Amino acid sequence: MQLHVNLGKDSYDIIIEQGALAHAGELIKKVYQGRRIAIISDDHVFPLYGKTLVDELGDYEVSEIVLPHGEKTKRFEILPSLYKQLLDAKLTRSDLIIALGGGVIGDLAGFVAATYLRGVKFIQIPTSLLAQVDSSVGGKVAVDLPQGKNLVGAFKHPLFVLIDPLTLKTLDDHFIRDGMGEVIKYGCIKDRDFFDRLKGYKNFAELYQDIDEIIYTCVDIKRDVVEKDLFDFGDRLCLNFGHTIGHALEQYYHYDHYSHGEAVGIGMVDVTLMSEQMGLTKPGCSDEIVEVLTHYELPTHAGVDPHLLLEAISHDKKNFDSSLQFVVLDDIGAYKIHKGKREEILTLEEV
Amino acid sequence: MQLHVNLGKDSYDIIIEQGALAHAGELIKKVYQGRRIAIISDDHVFPLYGKTLVDELGDYEVSEIVLPHGEKTKRFEILPSLYKQLLDAKLTRSDLIIALGGGVIGDLAGFVAATYLRGVKFIQIPTSLLAQVDSSVGGKVAVDLPQGKNLVGAFKHPLFVLIDPLTLKTLDDHFIRDGMGEVIKYGCIKDRDFFDRLKGYKNFAELYQDIDEIIYTCVDIKRDVVEKDLFDFGDRLCLNFGHTIGHALEQYYHYDHYSHGEAVGIGMVDVTLMSEQMGLTKPGCSDEIVEVLTHYELPTHAGVDPHLLLEAISHDKKNFDSSLQFVVLDDIGAYKIHKGKREEILTLEEV
Repeated sequence: MQLHVNLGKDSYDIIIEQGALAHAGELIKKVYQGRRIAIISDDHVFPLYGKTLVDELGDYEVSEIVLPHGEKTKRFEILPSLYKQLLDAKLTRSDLIIALGGGVIGDLAGFVAATYLRGVKFIQIPTSLLAQVDSSVGGKVAVDLPQGKNLVGAFKHPLFVLIDPLTLKTLDDHFIRDGMGEVIKYGCIKDRDFFDRLKGYKNFAELYQDIDEIIYTCVDIKRDVVEKDLFDFGDRLCLNFGHTIGHALEQYYHYDHYSHGEAVGIGMVDVTLMSEQMGLTKPGCSDEIVEVLTHYELPTHAGVDPHLLLEAISHDKKNFDSSLQFVVLDDIGAYKIHKGKREEILTLEEV
Repeated sequence: MQLHVNLGKDSYDIIIEQGALAHAGELIKKVYQGRRIAIISDDHVFPLYGKTLVDELGDYEVSEIVLPHGEKTKRFEILPSLYKQLLDAKLTRSDLIIALGGGVIGDLAGFVAATYLRGVKFIQIPTSLLAQVDSSVGGKVAVDLPQGKNLVGAFKHPLFVLIDPLTLKTLDDHFIRDGMGEVIKYGCIKDRDFFDRLKGYKNFAELYQDIDEIIYTCVDIKRDVVEKDLFDFGDRLCLNFGHTIGHALEQYYHYDHYSHGEAVGIGMVDVTLMSEQMGLTKPGCSDEIVEVLTHYELPTHAGVDPHLLLEAISHDKKNFDSSLQFVVLDDIGAYKIHKGKREEILTLEEV
C-alpha cells in the first residue's frame, strides 16, 4: 500500500508493506543517487534490523550511529556528538540520513537532518507502532530541553517513509499499547467506521491480521490533516485530542509511569467525560472510548486529583496563557474545538 | 527604497531607508499583530540602537537578549541559554524574534527563530555593511561547531528585512572594509557598470553619499540569485567568488587577522590571477580588482605560501573531496564555474 503526501515541492510517499525493509535498497536507490548514507538508530532496534538495512545499502558508503534507546537520547545536548560523527563520516550536503527506529530516533535524526549543514536528505523507517501511525508522518521533528519536551525542532520532510509492519512483531506489549492510544484517537476524531472496526477486534493479535490497512487508515487521516495545516496553526490541533490531560499526566509522573499512548487514552476518556457534562458531546461517547481502550489493555483511569494536573498544565511551556483550546467530540468520529480555561478540568472528580 | 524577494509563501520585503529604525514600530505593526517580541542583539549594537527600537515597540511585551559581540557568540553551545531566556520571557509559537546587529547576531537569532518551538516569526534589522548587503538576505542562518563555522543551520525567511544605512555611520573602518569586500564582489560577478561606479568613488566617505543605491544594487543582485537557487545547489555558488581562498586565509589566521570581506578581497584577486594564467579570464581583470580594493583600503595580497592554504582548504569540512568548483570571471561583471582541483591554487607563487 502506498500514500502520497501532497506538500508541493516537499511532497513524498509513504510505503506500507510487510517485509519492505528486506528490499529497502531498491526503494532508496530510486530516490537517492548520492554517495554516503548515515543510519541513526538505537541499541534496541539496530541489533534487530540494522544488518538487513545495511546489507541492502551495499552500493553506498554507510556509517552507523547507534544511540542508547529511550527518551533521554533526545536531549538537546546530544546534538554536538551527532554532528561530529557525521563530519567524521564526511557526510556532505548532498548526502542522506536514515532514521531507523521509533519516535525518539525519528524526531532526533530528523532534527539533525534538518540542521546539519543547513539540511541534508532524510528517510524515515519507523519501527514502532506509534512512529508508524503518528510521529513519522507530518514532518515535525524535535529535541528536548531541560525545560520540557520537543521545545526545539523543525519541520523536515523525508524523501519517503518506509513502514514495514513486520517490525511490530518484535515490539513489547508496552509499545503496542503506546501506539494503540493514537490509533484509537484517529477513530474518535475523524472516522466512526474505523472506530467501530477497532471495537470489533478482541485484541491486538486479532487486529494484527489487518495491520497494513489499520496503519493505512491512520496515516491517511494524518496525511489529510497535515496537508491542510502543515505548520499547525489550525486544523492540525484535532490531533491533540486527549493530549492536554495526557501530557499533564505524563509530566505529573515525570514520563516514568504511563507511555504517551496510555496517557492519551486516559486523556481522551476524561476530556470526553468533561465535555459530556458540559453538554458539548453526545452522552455515551466516553463509555465507548473506555470499551475500545479496554480491548487493547489500555488504562482508562489514573486516579489522580485534577488539581495536581492543573499545576502540570500551568507549567507546560506551550501553555503560557490560562485559556486553552480543548479538542472535544461532537460524537465518535467528529471533533470540534472548545475554547475554554484550563481550570475546567477541575470539573472532573478524578482523572 | 524597497525590494521584494519572491519566494512563494516565504516572500518578503527588504526596506532600505536612512532613518527607518526610528519608525520601525509602524513597519512592524503592519506585519505582526502578536503580543510578545524578543530582541536579540549584542553589547556593541544594543547600546547604540536598542533604545530607539524598544521605544518604537511600546505596544508589545518586549524582552531584550544582549550578547557579547563577536564570532564566539555564534557557538552552538550558547543555544540552550537563549532558548531558556525565550521560555522565561514566555515567547510562544505566534511571537516574534528581532535580530538587531551584524552578521553574527542575524545568523544566531535566525537559527533560534528557525528552531525554538519549531520556528517563530523573525525580522532582521542588520546594522553592519556586511549584514546589510549580504548575510541578512537569502535566508541562510547558522551557528558554529568546534569543527568549523556555520556547520549547523537552517533556511529561515524573515517577515521583512529593515536596512537603515544611518547605522553605518557608527561603524569602525574595520567593519566598513569587511562589507566593501562583498560589495565589490557583486560588481565583479554580475555588474560591470556597478563595478565601474565603485571605481569612480575616491573612498568610502564619497561612496556613502549614494549609500542607499549602493546597498540596493547589491541586495537586488543577491535577491535575483537567491530566487533562482534558494537552497544553494546551483547558481548561488557565484556568490562564493573569492571565497575559496578567502575562507582558507581566514582559517589559516584562525579568524584573527583578516576580516571576512578583507580575506574575500584577497581571494578575488588571487583566483583571478590564477584564472588569467589558465587563460580562462580576460587579462587585466585582476589589476582592475586590485585598483577598486585599494580605493576602499582593502588588502590585496597576504604574502602567504599557497601550500599552507591548501592544507586549510583540505581541512574545510565542506570540501571533503579534492575536486572544487571555482567561481572565476570571464570578464568583470560576468562569472563562470571552473571545475578544478584544489591543488590548482599552487600555481600561485604567493597568495
